Amino acid sequence: MNYKISNGKILLTGPDRLETAERDLYILDGRISFGPAGLPEESFEVVDAARHLVMPGLINMHTHAYMTLMRNYADDVGFDEWLFKRVMPVEDTLPLEGAYWGSLLACMEMIRTGTTTFMDMHMFRGQSCRAALESGMRAWIGRGLVGADLYGDGLSRFRQGLEEQAEYECGRIRFTLAPHAIYSCGPKLLEQVAREAADRGMRKQIHLSESDNEVDDALRKYGKTPVALLRDTGFLDEKTILAHCVKMRGDDISIIKEAGSTVVTNPASNAKLGNGFAPLQDFLDAGIQVCLGTDGTCSNNTLNMFREMGLVSLIHKAIHRNPVTAPADTVVRMATANAGRALGLAGELGVIAEGALADLIFLDLDAPSMFPVNNPVSALCYSACGSEVDSVMIDGSFVMRKGEYTSIDAERVRYEVQKVADQYL
Amino acid sequence: MNYKISNGKILLTGPDRLETAERDLYILDGRISFGPAGLPEESFEVVDAARHLVMPGLINMHTHAYMTLMRNYADDVGFDEWLFKRVMPVEDTLPLEGAYWGSLLACMEMIRTGTTTFMDMHMFRGQSCRAALESGMRAWIGRGLVGADLYGDGLSRFRQGLEEQAEYECGRIRFTLAPHAIYSCGPKLLEQVAREAADRGMRKQIHLSESDNEVDDALRKYGKTPVALLRDTGFLDEKTILAHCVKMRGDDISIIKEAGSTVVTNPASNAKLGNGFAPLQDFLDAGIQVCLGTDGTCSNNTLNMFREMGLVSLIHKAIHRNPVTAPADTVVRMATANAGRALGLAGELGVIAEGALADLIFLDLDAPSMFPVNNPVSALCYSACGSEVDSVMIDGSFVMRKGEYTSIDAERVRYEVQKVADQYL
Repeated sequence: MNYKISNGKILLTGPDRLETAERDLYILDGRISFGPAGLPEESFEVVDAARHLVMPGLINMHTHAYMTLMRNYADDVGFDEWLFKRVMPVEDTLPLEGAYWGSLLACMEMIRTGTTTFMDMHMFRGQSCRAALESGMRAWIGRGLVGADLYGDGLSRFRQGLEEQAEYECGRIRFTLAPHAIYSCGPKLLEQVAREAADRGMRKQIHLSESDNEVDDALRKYGKTPVALLRDTGFLDEKTILAHCVKMRGDDISIIKEAGSTVVTNPASNAKLGNGFAPLQDFLDAGIQVCLGTDGTCSNNTLNMFREMGLVSLIHKAIHRNPVTAPADTVVRMATANAGRALGLAGELGVIAEGALADLIFLDLDAPSMFPVNNPVSALCYSACGSEVDSVMIDGSFVMRKGEYTSIDAERVRYEVQKVADQYL
Repeated sequence: MNYKISNGKILLTGPDRLETAERDLYILDGRISFGPAGLPEESFEVVDAARHLVMPGLINMHTHAYMTLMRNYADDVGFDEWLFKRVMPVEDTLPLEGAYWGSLLACMEMIRTGTTTFMDMHMFRGQSCRAALESGMRAWIGRGLVGADLYGDGLSRFRQGLEEQAEYECGRIRFTLAPHAIYSCGPKLLEQVAREAADRGMRKQIHLSESDNEVDDALRKYGKTPVALLRDTGFLDEKTILAHCVKMRGDDISIIKEAGSTVVTNPASNAKLGNGFAPLQDFLDAGIQVCLGTDGTCSNNTLNMFREMGLVSLIHKAIHRNPVTAPADTVVRMATANAGRALGLAGELGVIAEGALADLIFLDLDAPSMFPVNNPVSALCYSACGSEVDSVMIDGSFVMRKGEYTSIDAERVRYEVQKVADQYL
């Protein structure tokens, strides 16, 4: 289906900052065009976007979709109880089908709150892919790898990841290599992953320097920070996505900058687990590309990128005692265009531009939280809560329209998730 | 109308913590009862609350409703530009009617996101009262006072406040005395206000120790902190509500504790204006009663108490590097029962209890953000975004039902607000 989106307020990237303009958008073969591309107007279904802000779908650059089963399941407890007594026992017994329904619930929530693309690190072969495919979402997916040797103790998970890729990779679903962290993966495995990723042209993702313990242990064991260890294994390059990066020490930031890697900050998760605040301003000052992620619901407990945008701006204004720190424009880009660049789709993903992928969300400007519309970019960061999104298009198709899912049977998902929760939680 | 609320999950205050139970609630003459109070069942209209959490309405203990006109109007600028070039010029020219529509928009947003009571400090005679009365909300309202002498340069505002009280005070609308701050009010005025409030049995509210400048200036001018100044003017007692309290120094916290005054923390506003983080844990450790507020939309930019609950918990976990700090149970009480106590209605407001005021909100437990319902109290603090609220009862009457306002003509409010914004912003 081709669409003509009319009467909307369109969020565009101006020369200096994001701005809005009232203009038509044409959607043709899953791409955005500012004109009808020579086709007669009748070949487009008109979508009336009056009183709506139309913007690029948000991109959640770090999550674990299956965990959504465990939303609000392990809160206000210490880290060890959280991980070893609550989260891991569920993960150890959960069947594949359970992870599938949890992942589909994640897609439901992400679509509902305007996220169109997510980067997932998972542990249940194929389930995140199934959920993303069926929900209509765009995703970059990686099987969490652990071990000392990719071709030894790490082999079965590596194979699972490659099997998934062979089975599911398509326009909307891409694959990454995803070693879990430097404390669960040895340097040899990291080197091997770096080579495999280079050979295959794949992106890499990893949890990095999330806690003081991680950094202190690395310094004891390797005599260097986790960031330096990654550099020395050849893991850091412009296709590397580094989640968390809370505890930067020494030259860490300049190492990341030099490598051209991307940092994904996860403010809610880092706060909720008591790890603190990532040095966002230092990343920005260094010119590092920064994106935004929610992490999984066990440490958030929502996948709502609007909450995350507000949070990241507010905490950094507070930390720096400066109302100008982390302005709305910067934050909205972190959740859109920066992610598109990090995923190798600069100008194609996370922006509204001629030829860009048609991943669009429609926000109701009549919602009390958006009204009056004094500054739409401010609204996205400071007053929206996510429920203003009433329609979502991904890859040129609507997955939610006027609040109704078109791809997901929400009642069925709730029924199945509840069954899994009753049995395994 | 009397109601019987059936099939809901009811949030109750257990012996140690908040808990939920499945039981019926009867609403009779604006009060909650656990039984039909001798009346036949037919005298109650049945409200089916299946798949809903029924809880006390949230209480926003510090805001400036009229400011909602200026939502997203003055962001990402320094404090002086914010106040002197953006906010104050609007306030200086805005007519009463403009403040009324802004206040009604505030009520729309508060109701939509589950707030049933607010404490307002305003500067437009009668307009906040009108909006609260018409919307059906409960409010404690105070005319912001400034000057050196309550009966001299402060007199006209004081009189306005008393006139409002005479005109509007009723069961739902109560009045406070509201000196603006120690930097805009002299010690003599503060003493006079304290006496007037005591004579009249009124509560007092004030902005306090919001910024370093305020505290440094007080130390220079008075040789004591703003808190000590308030104590020495007789202003601090158990009927005093202190908004902000970000910059506590010396004995400030023990002074507040000794006086039995209430602290209202406003995490979004303090962060957004670059003032930093209030020492929440110190207040809690001292046994001070702490409530939660959004402040006005110029420094937030939403009146969404769910956003505020999540924020206050996350930032304090991060600051203390402890996932157990500011747990959900504590935070939900800050937004409900603590406020009821601070307003002199312990056991009557902010709780579900026999005889309590029937201010109730209904949250859809099928919303993706609430599902699966592993822990409803966690959900309120960590995953809800406010849009889960679909029905709101205040004083025994529905002001929103299944997402539809019953007291507010939303379209009219938007029309009028837009007109005011076009003319004065």
